[in-house]
Amino acid sequence: MNTPLTPTAAPVSPVLPFAPLINDSFLRACRHQATDYTPLWMMRQAGRFLPEYRAVRARAGSFMDLATNVDFATEVTLQPVQRFQVDAAILFSDILTVPDAMGLGLSFAEGEGPRFAHPVHDEAAVAQLAVPDMDKLRYVLDAVTSIRHALGGKVPLIGFSGSPWTLACYMVEGGSSSDYRLVKTMLYSRPDLMHRILQINADAVAQYLNAQILAGAQAVMIFDSWGGVLADGAFQTFSLAYTRRVLSQLHKACCGVHIPCIVFTKGGGPWLDEMESLDCDVLGVDWTVNLTQARLIAGSSKALQGNLDPNVLFAPPAQIEAEVIRVLDAFGTPHTGSGTGPTHIFNLGHGISQHTPPEHVTALVQAVHHHSRQMRGAC
Amino acid sequence: MNTPLTPTAAPVSPVLPFAPLINDSFLRACRHQATDYTPLWMMRQAGRFLPEYRAVRARAGSFMDLATNVDFATEVTLQPVQRFQVDAAILFSDILTVPDAMGLGLSFAEGEGPRFAHPVHDEAAVAQLAVPDMDKLRYVLDAVTSIRHALGGKVPLIGFSGSPWTLACYMVEGGSSSDYRLVKTMLYSRPDLMHRILQINADAVAQYLNAQILAGAQAVMIFDSWGGVLADGAFQTFSLAYTRRVLSQLHKACCGVHIPCIVFTKGGGPWLDEMESLDCDVLGVDWTVNLTQARLIAGSSKALQGNLDPNVLFAPPAQIEAEVIRVLDAFGTPHTGSGTGPTHIFNLGHGISQHTPPEHVTALVQAVHHHSRQMRGAC
Repeated sequence: MNTPLTPTAAPVSPVLPFAPLINDSFLRACRHQATDYTPLWMMRQAGRFLPEYRAVRARAGSFMDLATNVDFATEVTLQPVQRFQVDAAILFSDILTVPDAMGLGLSFAEGEGPRFAHPVHDEAAVAQLAVPDMDKLRYVLDAVTSIRHALGGKVPLIGFSGSPWTLACYMVEGGSSSDYRLVKTMLYSRPDLMHRILQINADAVAQYLNAQILAGAQAVMIFDSWGGVLADGAFQTFSLAYTRRVLSQLHKACCGVHIPCIVFTKGGGPWLDEMESLDCDVLGVDWTVNLTQARLIAGSSKALQGNLDPNVLFAPPAQIEAEVIRVLDAFGTPHTGSGTGPTHIFNLGHGISQHTPPEHVTALVQAVHHHSRQMRGAC
Repeated sequence: MNTPLTPTAAPVSPVLPFAPLINDSFLRACRHQATDYTPLWMMRQAGRFLPEYRAVRARAGSFMDLATNVDFATEVTLQPVQRFQVDAAILFSDILTVPDAMGLGLSFAEGEGPRFAHPVHDEAAVAQLAVPDMDKLRYVLDAVTSIRHALGGKVPLIGFSGSPWTLACYMVEGGSSSDYRLVKTMLYSRPDLMHRILQINADAVAQYLNAQILAGAQAVMIFDSWGGVLADGAFQTFSLAYTRRVLSQLHKACCGVHIPCIVFTKGGGPWLDEMESLDCDVLGVDWTVNLTQARLIAGSSKALQGNLDPNVLFAPPAQIEAEVIRVLDAFGTPHTGSGTGPTHIFNLGHGISQHTPPEHVTALVQAVHHHSRQMRGAC
């Protein structure tokens, strides 16, 4: 199923053509094609660890003021691309824009996590949920187009959304949670309500990602940040099935160009064999996963993205380099030559910490590019 | 290596003999022997979800006043045994008694987690660490003996300790952590310091568990609560190796009776194949683990303990029963008859939530005992 956007979706076709892509290493790796080195980007790379981000944030006001302003979002998305030799940009936005557009009332108290003014606690609240009008997310789609233009083809732009289950966690808990008590109580007590939330979320996420693709995203990523808190069995029923539902509705190409999709379940290592059958191009894995084993399980059909522990970046450059080599070696030499084969996209196993020294990221990028070039030369 | 207690260890030999054991189903399952039903206990079963616990806590004052008082510790340890048909008791104590005895100054602020007054942040603090005099932990050992007497042989008593790595997390972070930044920074920047902490912790934990065994513990459990936050590779080097170091020093028997040891790494599912080679009797697994697969990987040499998501206990009894059957069926019919074979000890995948309705635990215990008897009858 390849559902077109609903008539209410934002008209996002750019008036001007986008610049041709210069560095295509990330997209090639997504498509299982050989690259001269292992491409790298970092989850949350446009963020608080960068002083230039903090300066924009101070100008913008609140986090939501920053995230909803096209110019600010464009500026901070480009910052890591300008400072580091990363091989992809990722849209600066929040994971919770979709439930906010559903009317749940997103806000961020300083120093705390996200909060919904109207969490989904009961049957009545579930009954009111609906796929939001994509016009309410036009600010995100406009940012995608703006960023794509601003990048000028330097590196590709990744769009993203939270997974249906991860969005449901926040929607039911009303914010972050340490034990997922409310959402799991609903899951085990009223699975019918949970399935209804997840169906709506899946259809909304699919429309949202499709709109990002039409707006200029050259790849999309589904962040299943809390899939790993589910029990075996529940993960398959309440997370994986709805990620599959999103994937079944996604545009696989735009303007004749294939749009790769990345699925990342934090803590999803135990279910990699089942994720291997997802209709996506790349699987993200966290640092608990052994990349040698992951390649055996899923590497013939999926590119693998990951998986350095973000805390490695607090160590001095020499140790960072050593850990980079460990990760590269664990994956092993990727596919080289023509055709397709196993490929690796270097990333962290989760978002970069706000406390990371930026110069350590410079060391990381250099180490990944240098050693992954050497690795290819050696084979 | 089976190291005797140091001369400074508390003299814990009981003056009176303990009563003979009536319900030995838990110990039989630990030893891979057949039982009429699947024995059950719950991590944190003596705790805040019980009104009778909260009453004792109110009488005692602070958490530490409760944990360090032999009479209080005895009373609350017995509460779940009296209320439910659980098949084992577990010592009521805190996971951080050992670093407290090292002089780190443990306290609990109301509504917050544990705090150390003197966290281990630098080389000087590491240099000062030493295996504590077991006399400083006499209050725990006296509680073990008191509880064993108070149980009167009704069910066996489990002693426990945090794992070397889990203790190190708290010692370096100074308390609970959401990102393990400080402890991982030390691990990656100064692995020499981390290894020194872990060596001391391992030797201290071994002495502590041996002292509990001599004081009357009939099984011991190592809680590697934070092993699962480590990267693949780091887990083996900084957690598993030191759990192994503890196990190599443990008394395997006391008074001619084998003392089973349980190792539980929360989030340890990815490394079950490596944990299979540990010199212990039982592996605990959390709810992300598929018990069918775990039995294939480790079930021929290890009993498996787990793994219901504690959040299932917020659902009504009918759903609890359905989830119990799922867990029992995932393990499959355990060994029956004479000799030894695969066995299962029912437990939660983590500690029971303080918000759990006690009557739901009654439903859990009934469901486990009833269905696991039926399962054996059917084979």
